[in-house]
Amino acid sequence: MHLTGEDIGAMESRYRAALINSITGFKPANLIGTADLTGHTNVAIMSSVVHLGSHPPLLGLIIRPDSAERHTLQNIRDTGLYTINHVNDTFVERAHQTAARYPRQQSEFAATGLTEHWIEDFAAPFVAEATITLGLQLREHHHLSINDTHLVIGEIVHARLPDGCLRDDGSLDIAAAGSVAISGLDSYHSTQRLHRLAYAKPDTPTSTID
Amino acid sequence: MHLTGEDIGAMESRYRAALINSITGFKPANLIGTADLTGHTNVAIMSSVVHLGSHPPLLGLIIRPDSAERHTLQNIRDTGLYTINHVNDTFVERAHQTAARYPRQQSEFAATGLTEHWIEDFAAPFVAEATITLGLQLREHHHLSINDTHLVIGEIVHARLPDGCLRDDGSLDIAAAGSVAISGLDSYHSTQRLHRLAYAKPDTPTSTID
Repeated sequence: MHLTGEDIGAMESRYRAALINSITGFKPANLIGTADLTGHTNVAIMSSVVHLGSHPPLLGLIIRPDSAERHTLQNIRDTGLYTINHVNDTFVERAHQTAARYPRQQSEFAATGLTEHWIEDFAAPFVAEATITLGLQLREHHHLSINDTHLVIGEIVHARLPDGCLRDDGSLDIAAAGSVAISGLDSYHSTQRLHRLAYAKPDTPTSTID
Repeated sequence: MHLTGEDIGAMESRYRAALINSITGFKPANLIGTADLTGHTNVAIMSSVVHLGSHPPLLGLIIRPDSAERHTLQNIRDTGLYTINHVNDTFVERAHQTAARYPRQQSEFAATGLTEHWIEDFAAPFVAEATITLGLQLREHHHLSINDTHLVIGEIVHARLPDGCLRDDGSLDIAAAGSVAISGLDSYHSTQRLHRLAYAKPDTPTSTID
């Protein structure tokens, strides 16, 4: 099947959203934890975290302000802090439920049965149920006027990792940690490793690490 | 295990890169196809495609100019066109091998055994082995001075999809299409669907679709 840009533009809007959200491939499943200036908490599932660089450790996050994500953006801009928590296979339903449009004063933690975890001197809540959690400091905020979305750039200042999942080379076995992948707007997937492949070099055949 | 920003900053650089590249969760595995103004082709694996919006259908792509990705960025800026091709489980090794630093004049298609596929009036090559392929027109380019990376924003103007994978609601079954997920710099994963979950609403229990 071959679709053109015009075909896509002519689609019914929910159909188009389902297609275009699934067309990029698998996405990370993360809960973004924030608080407002009075300490009221918010947690929202997002699949738009992207690696920007390792030194300093910078991550990007795309936020749509016309969605349930608008409170998250406001809190990040107000406090400069947020957490990224891997969704794992033990709490997929609760994580998905955070996407509902709860009123601002109702925390998605209480509404969905997730548990806040706080650490000293960090004014954003972690998700206690998650085994891989990151604390970020806002570094830059870019409004993308082309479609009124926002690129939030943050630096990792805290990382909590399960001991058994960190390999000798620094890589994390996130499949063993139970982290899940998202496809589209609503599909959650567990994963199975096919290969680890050695650093690619010209004129050297591809080889597996494990 | 709890790491601070200082702990991460003090790590050996390859160890840190392995950790920070795997810390965001699963990532899409895509081959980016481009050509220079004389038609010489390039194809490079990237895990940094991110959904920006569905109407118009806009995707973001983060490119590091200090890597093997620099030729891709130059070609996109010169021609305004590129392709995004899902890596599937039948050609993971060839896809990974495109990351090697081949000289500019050597096409990664020929070097790795991947096949160019061209369509009329579109000056960037698709990957014939891929079953889900997209043709994009460059819309915006942002230099992110914070760490000298680039955000490329493109609009989908062509999409080729396998008939059997498009569901009635517009979502794509990319697991059935064989698309793989990446973890870190070198791990490739197949996936298995756990759930599709219905649109979340306050005061309505989470329910599965399938």
